[in-house]
Amino acid sequence: MGMTITEKILAAHAGLDHVTPGDLISAKVDVALGNDITAPIAIKRFRDAGAEKVFDKDRVILVPDHFVPNKDIQSAMQVKTVREFAREQGLTYFFDGGEMGVEHAILPEKGLVLPGDLVIGADSHTCTYGGLGAFSTGVGSTDLAAAMITGEVWLRVPEAMKFVFTGELSPWVEGKDLILYLIGDIGVDGALYRSMEFTGPVIDKLSVEGRMTMANMAIEAGGKNGIIAPDALTEEYVSGRAVREYQFYQSDADAEYAEVREYDVSTIEPQVAFPHLPENTRGISEVGDVPIDQVVIGSCTNGRIEDMRSAAAILKGHRADKNVRLIIIPTTPHIYRTAMEEGLFEIFMDAGAVISPPTCGPCLGGHMGILAQGERAVATTNRNFVGRMGHPESEVYLSNPAVAAASAILGKIAGPAEVVGS
Amino acid sequence: MGMTITEKILAAHAGLDHVTPGDLISAKVDVALGNDITAPIAIKRFRDAGAEKVFDKDRVILVPDHFVPNKDIQSAMQVKTVREFAREQGLTYFFDGGEMGVEHAILPEKGLVLPGDLVIGADSHTCTYGGLGAFSTGVGSTDLAAAMITGEVWLRVPEAMKFVFTGELSPWVEGKDLILYLIGDIGVDGALYRSMEFTGPVIDKLSVEGRMTMANMAIEAGGKNGIIAPDALTEEYVSGRAVREYQFYQSDADAEYAEVREYDVSTIEPQVAFPHLPENTRGISEVGDVPIDQVVIGSCTNGRIEDMRSAAAILKGHRADKNVRLIIIPTTPHIYRTAMEEGLFEIFMDAGAVISPPTCGPCLGGHMGILAQGERAVATTNRNFVGRMGHPESEVYLSNPAVAAASAILGKIAGPAEVVGS
Repeated sequence: MGMTITEKILAAHAGLDHVTPGDLISAKVDVALGNDITAPIAIKRFRDAGAEKVFDKDRVILVPDHFVPNKDIQSAMQVKTVREFAREQGLTYFFDGGEMGVEHAILPEKGLVLPGDLVIGADSHTCTYGGLGAFSTGVGSTDLAAAMITGEVWLRVPEAMKFVFTGELSPWVEGKDLILYLIGDIGVDGALYRSMEFTGPVIDKLSVEGRMTMANMAIEAGGKNGIIAPDALTEEYVSGRAVREYQFYQSDADAEYAEVREYDVSTIEPQVAFPHLPENTRGISEVGDVPIDQVVIGSCTNGRIEDMRSAAAILKGHRADKNVRLIIIPTTPHIYRTAMEEGLFEIFMDAGAVISPPTCGPCLGGHMGILAQGERAVATTNRNFVGRMGHPESEVYLSNPAVAAASAILGKIAGPAEVVGS
Repeated sequence: MGMTITEKILAAHAGLDHVTPGDLISAKVDVALGNDITAPIAIKRFRDAGAEKVFDKDRVILVPDHFVPNKDIQSAMQVKTVREFAREQGLTYFFDGGEMGVEHAILPEKGLVLPGDLVIGADSHTCTYGGLGAFSTGVGSTDLAAAMITGEVWLRVPEAMKFVFTGELSPWVEGKDLILYLIGDIGVDGALYRSMEFTGPVIDKLSVEGRMTMANMAIEAGGKNGIIAPDALTEEYVSGRAVREYQFYQSDADAEYAEVREYDVSTIEPQVAFPHLPENTRGISEVGDVPIDQVVIGSCTNGRIEDMRSAAAILKGHRADKNVRLIIIPTTPHIYRTAMEEGLFEIFMDAGAVISPPTCGPCLGGHMGILAQGERAVATTNRNFVGRMGHPESEVYLSNPAVAAASAILGKIAGPAEVVGS
C-alpha cells in the first residue's frame, strides 16, 4: 500500500518505513515554534520539568508577534519572558525589535521551514508551511514544551482527504477563494483531524504564497494539516533561502484517501465568508448590500508581498470611502520594505490607508484596529468567530486582498470588478 | 502699565482693553480640542447639559490619537463615540483613519491653530501652540464641554515669568534641551499657574518646531501656558497653512513679570531627564552608564519632521544595539510620508527600527511599545513619571531625538557626539 505525502513525512521523522492512519508515533521535529502568547506557558512547563537546555538552539524558534510592539504591561511581560529565555538558551532565531514580524510569514521567508519538514508550533495556523510541502501543525503549549526538551512529538497519523482543483481561475480568484470555497463546501469540521492534500492543475500553477494561504486555513476546516506537494515553484521559492537540507515528498499513486473531492474552479467567484464562521461563504455576486467600517489587509493568511501587490492594484488611483478605516499590515520587515520600495506605500497612503508595522494586530482582537460594538470589517485574515476582532457585537467578513481593497473603496463589501472592471 | 503677549491675547478674547494677573475673565476660544480619552466625557457633559449644537463646527476639533488604531474594545468604543458625534455635528475637522495623527502635531500643520489664538484643549499638552504665539492651555473635559457649547472659557489671568536665552547653542542642543534645562532649574512646579514666556536671541533663531517643543513642555513646570512671540519664522510657517486670519501680539517693553530668568545656553549640554520627574535633568556628560531596553522617537513633543531628520542624521549607517527596540513614530500622515519620501524610513529600517503609524503610542502607556518590569527607555516624549510608559517598575529617560538615536545605537544613554563626533 502506498503512502500520502503526509504519511511519508511522518514515517521518515518517526524512523519507520511505513505508517497508517491511526498509528500513534513519536516523531522528530525539525522546528518547534512558539509566540508571545504560547511560549511563556511552554517556558514555564520547560522549567517545571527541570529542563536546562533546549534540544537544539537552531530548531526552537520563538517569534513574539501577536501583541507587538508591546500592547500593554501584560504583553510586555510575556515578551520579556520569551526574550530572556531566548537569550539564556542562545537561540539562533528569535525575532525582536526591528526584526519583528508574523511568525508564519517570517519562517518561510527566512528559509527556516522547508519541504519535507515536520514542524510543530503552539499556534493553530502553524499549518501554513504545508504550502511548501512540509507537515506542520498546531499544538498546545505543553506539547511545545516537550518538543523543546526532547526534539520529538507524539502524533496520531491522520486520515487523508484529497482535494483536486481543475479548470481555469476566474479573474481575482486566488488561493484564499479556493480555500474559502472548500471550507464553505465541507464546513468548519469537514476535515476534522484529517490531512488535507490540495492538488490538481490549478494548484500546480498557484504561487507558493497562494499555496501557503490555502494550507494556512486547513485548520479552519478542522484539518490536522494542509499540504501541497512541492514542485519547481517550491524549489524556486526555497532554494535561495533554505538554512539547511530539505527533501521533496510526493504522494504515491496508490495512496489511500478517506475522501476525494474535486472542484472545477471555473465556476468559483471571489468568496466572502460571512459572520461568524469561515464556512459561511458566498460568491461576491451574492453578497448583497453590506456597509462596512474597517478593512484589514494583513495576517499570516494574506499579508505577503503578493497580497500587498494585489491590494495596491485595486487601490491605485482610488481612495477608501470616508466611513472606512483601511489598515494595511505587511507581515515581515522584508515585505514591509519591499512594498515601500515598490511604491505601494504611496498608493496605500493616497488611498487613505494606515500602514502598520509587522504584527498580527487586530486579526485575533489583539490591537491595531479593534472593532467597536456594531462595527463591520472586511479582513484578509482567517477567522470570523464572534468577537474575533473586538466587540462581541462586531462582525468580520473574510476575503482575499483584492476584494478587501475594493470594499474599502466602495464602503461596502464589493468585488474588484466593481472598481477596475473584470 | 503694559501687558505681556499672554495678557494681550486674553484681553482681546475677553473683549477687554486690559487685564491684570488674577483677573477672572470669560474669553472667546478660537479652537476647542478633544481627543479619544477626553472627548467622550465632554460629549456626555454636552448631552447632559441638553445642548444640541456645538457653537461652531469649524472650531470644535476632535482628534482620536491616544489609542489609535484602536488598541482594544474600550478604546474602539471611545473613538466610536467621538466619530459619531463628529458626524452628527458635521464637524469640519475630525481626523480618522488615514488622517489619524497626534493632535498637537496635526493642528499646527493644518493651520488650524494660529498666532494670537486662544485655544483650549482637554489634553495637558495643548500648551504646544504657544510656540506659534498663541495662548493655549489644557483644560478638563467639563470645561471643554462648556466651550463646545458656548465658545467661551473662564480663565484666571496668570502671572507671567520671562525666560531669556542668550549665547550660542552647542552642537546637538535643541529646543528640547533648553526646556529640560529650564525645568531642571525651576522644578516641576516652578511655574505653577504662570505664563512662561520664552525669549532672547537664542529663541529668535530657534525653528518653529523647536519652539513648539519648548511650549509643549511648559506644563511640565506647572505653567498655565508657554509662549513665544511670533516673528518672521512664524509667519513663514503659518502663511501657507492658515485656515483663517491671525494676529501677531508682542509683549510691551513695560510688561510686568513676577520673575525673569536668564540662561546663557553656551554652557548647556544635551540634557537627559532621569526618572521619575522631568526636573531630574543631567547634562549628557554626567549621565553615567545606563543600559537601556527601548528607544522611542515621537510624541507631540518631538515627533515632527525636524525630529525625524535629527534622528536620521545620527542613525544613518548605524544599527540599534541588539538589546534595544527602537520605535519611531512620525506624528502626522504628512510627516510620515515626508520622512518616507526623504529616504529616512530606509535609514530607520537599516538601523533596525520599527516605524509606527501616527499615534501617541507608548508615551502615556497607551500601546505600541509598553515597558515591562525593570525595563528602561530613552524617549523624546514629555513625561517620565512612575509607570508612564508601562510597568510601575520601568523607567523613562527624556531626551532630544539625537540623544535618543545615539542611545539606541550604543545600547545605553549616550550623546550624539559619541556616535558621529562633535
